[in-house]
Amino acid sequence: MSPVVEILSTGDELLTGQIVDTNSAWLMDRLWDLGVGVRRKTLVGDDRADLLAALAETTARAEVVVMSGGLGPTEDDLTAECVAAAMGVPLELHAPTLEAIRERFQRFGRTMTPNNEKQARIPRGATVIPNRFGTAPGFRAPLGRAEVICLPGVPVEFRGLCEEAVLPRLAARIGEPPAARLVKLFGVAESHADDRMRPVMDDPENRDVRFGYRAHWPEIHVKWAVPGAGAAGRADRILARVRGLFGDAIFGEGREELAELVVGRLRERGQRLAVAESCTGGMVAQMITAVPGASAVFDLGVVAYANAAKTALLGVPEAVLASQGAVSEAVARLLAEGARARAGTDWGIGITGIAGPDGGTPEKPVGTVHLALAGPGGTDHWARKYFGDRDRVRRTGAYDALNRLRLALR
Amino acid sequence: MSPVVEILSTGDELLTGQIVDTNSAWLMDRLWDLGVGVRRKTLVGDDRADLLAALAETTARAEVVVMSGGLGPTEDDLTAECVAAAMGVPLELHAPTLEAIRERFQRFGRTMTPNNEKQARIPRGATVIPNRFGTAPGFRAPLGRAEVICLPGVPVEFRGLCEEAVLPRLAARIGEPPAARLVKLFGVAESHADDRMRPVMDDPENRDVRFGYRAHWPEIHVKWAVPGAGAAGRADRILARVRGLFGDAIFGEGREELAELVVGRLRERGQRLAVAESCTGGMVAQMITAVPGASAVFDLGVVAYANAAKTALLGVPEAVLASQGAVSEAVARLLAEGARARAGTDWGIGITGIAGPDGGTPEKPVGTVHLALAGPGGTDHWARKYFGDRDRVRRTGAYDALNRLRLALR
Repeated sequence: MSPVVEILSTGDELLTGQIVDTNSAWLMDRLWDLGVGVRRKTLVGDDRADLLAALAETTARAEVVVMSGGLGPTEDDLTAECVAAAMGVPLELHAPTLEAIRERFQRFGRTMTPNNEKQARIPRGATVIPNRFGTAPGFRAPLGRAEVICLPGVPVEFRGLCEEAVLPRLAARIGEPPAARLVKLFGVAESHADDRMRPVMDDPENRDVRFGYRAHWPEIHVKWAVPGAGAAGRADRILARVRGLFGDAIFGEGREELAELVVGRLRERGQRLAVAESCTGGMVAQMITAVPGASAVFDLGVVAYANAAKTALLGVPEAVLASQGAVSEAVARLLAEGARARAGTDWGIGITGIAGPDGGTPEKPVGTVHLALAGPGGTDHWARKYFGDRDRVRRTGAYDALNRLRLALR
Repeated sequence: MSPVVEILSTGDELLTGQIVDTNSAWLMDRLWDLGVGVRRKTLVGDDRADLLAALAETTARAEVVVMSGGLGPTEDDLTAECVAAAMGVPLELHAPTLEAIRERFQRFGRTMTPNNEKQARIPRGATVIPNRFGTAPGFRAPLGRAEVICLPGVPVEFRGLCEEAVLPRLAARIGEPPAARLVKLFGVAESHADDRMRPVMDDPENRDVRFGYRAHWPEIHVKWAVPGAGAAGRADRILARVRGLFGDAIFGEGREELAELVVGRLRERGQRLAVAESCTGGMVAQMITAVPGASAVFDLGVVAYANAAKTALLGVPEAVLASQGAVSEAVARLLAEGARARAGTDWGIGITGIAGPDGGTPEKPVGTVHLALAGPGGTDHWARKYFGDRDRVRRTGAYDALNRLRLALR
């Protein structure tokens, strides 16, 4: 049975909006995959009374309370002290932790100050969770009707310790984890995705399956988790149905990003890419080169913003720019072919459009974008009209261009 | 006096990690400027019992509870119903709201379904907050010892209604708002910023001033808010001190972004820019072209990833690449000058480096970056060594390049 879980975060910096608490959403997402729901999330400042009250309330309601923050060396860090007070026990120095902190400081050539010792003081009866990602260890302790698991708030430490010490423990507690699958869609509105998924979600056979959406604009992620015996086979049968429903709109299955997929496929084929962008202003090149090892497949990007640059660097004739306009099928094709020819690559992407807010006309309103893909078999073109502001138009265009290449590389 | 404020959010999508609740951090930040602190933030799912419990608890502790979410048309949307139940009053149809919803549907040419009527049903005794950003109105009502203010969770609606109806009301309640100032730093570590600010923060004269940091990596924002009489003059005197402490590391005062500042300054001077990037892979061009109207100052970006592209498009001699390596002062200068000459612009930026994770050597480790800026007065060069992963090195490099141009344009 899945336990009742609550999340409790502490830190003034979270209550003044200095930092958005992304740890919680991350943990909720990972717990979802395990079939564990979070009942409530509470955020309090670095205040003794507030923290003690929140500890009492959460540990009276939940079976597991995951707490983040307040384990640092400063006076404001009150978590260990408050948990000890709530448990009615003193803090005790944990010698192996002190040793680990000392070693860490030596390794980085820094001087250990007395307040760093504070991080080795743990409530009596608590179990230390060693932290190889940072200085302050976590710990878990029985409190109220719950187990409270205290972790540092620094994201890399919080996530690392969750992966190492929290999620496996919860997984063991609930028995067999569900079989979870994820597909990533591009080019489908969220409401349409929901409509198309309805028959699958409403199928009596899938009554025990949890479905979830996530809008990572411009991507939509659809997830499902199947519990019990034969879960993997059932999850894969749903995957087959979902593939049938969305076809090419599925650009990825699993955690891989669109640009990673494109770079991976180019690499497998030993092919190379060049890009000529206007409205996206370098976003396509930027997405590709964000992938480690992109230099194996990417040669050149040209952000030909001025018409003169389109002519001088990519050979787009002035006459075509004058007669068709910079935002046109002809220019998109010439950009793609120009980038490919200039760099001597297998593939060339061309993209030109009106990102707004200015520059739209009745014939070519803001959001008008022409995409072209030049490849070994010729050049393809797509005329598109996107909705939204400058950022949305640019981002959708860059995604669309990469997605066309992905489809061409199948 | 500043009232005790709590934030209560509802929505299953927030508890499964589908959506990160950015509304809360946004509101906390805006409240900070007013001198209003948030005491606690609570997040519950779309569950009647949980919502009723949270309403009872928050309205017993706080004087103002800002609630977001649960005002939509579906069965899961329980906010109005639960607030009415907690108040011990029925829901009543609010005729002007129903009319506004109907008009909105007509305007967008959509059919109004019966469940949309639900959004016009408000607890008796509550005051409607009209919503010109979306369908569901907000409302405020007395509950417990608090005023509870219920707003839709859609960010544009939540923020719009906060600006229109929540923040002015709170501001009126606390009297004279403090004078708030913001400076944005680049190139200073957060801990160093804190060290340098110490004398200002510890100055007895500034005892009543609230100071705050915000790490928007790679930027650091330092804010302060001065209360009481003569606040504006005092805030500006602190600004003068802070300018003295950080000098050129302050790239902005107020909300403007680095790229906006650079585009604005180029525009004022009637000058134009071209960029040649290697390791940043289009990020500089992308940042510049994200600014509306960038085409007035930006002509060309070249992402010269392959050495052949550096030679063919920007005239970097093969001999220099062979003798100095692609990541070198000579190549950075030639990239900047090549971009400037090719596009015929006033300014050219060149950037080449090793973003990692591979490609580092003992002489040129990952994070080595050479920047150059070619302008009317010649070419300047900076050799840099950044820390962090591929994304950090690229992002820092792109910021650094834009910041050099900002300084040159003073």
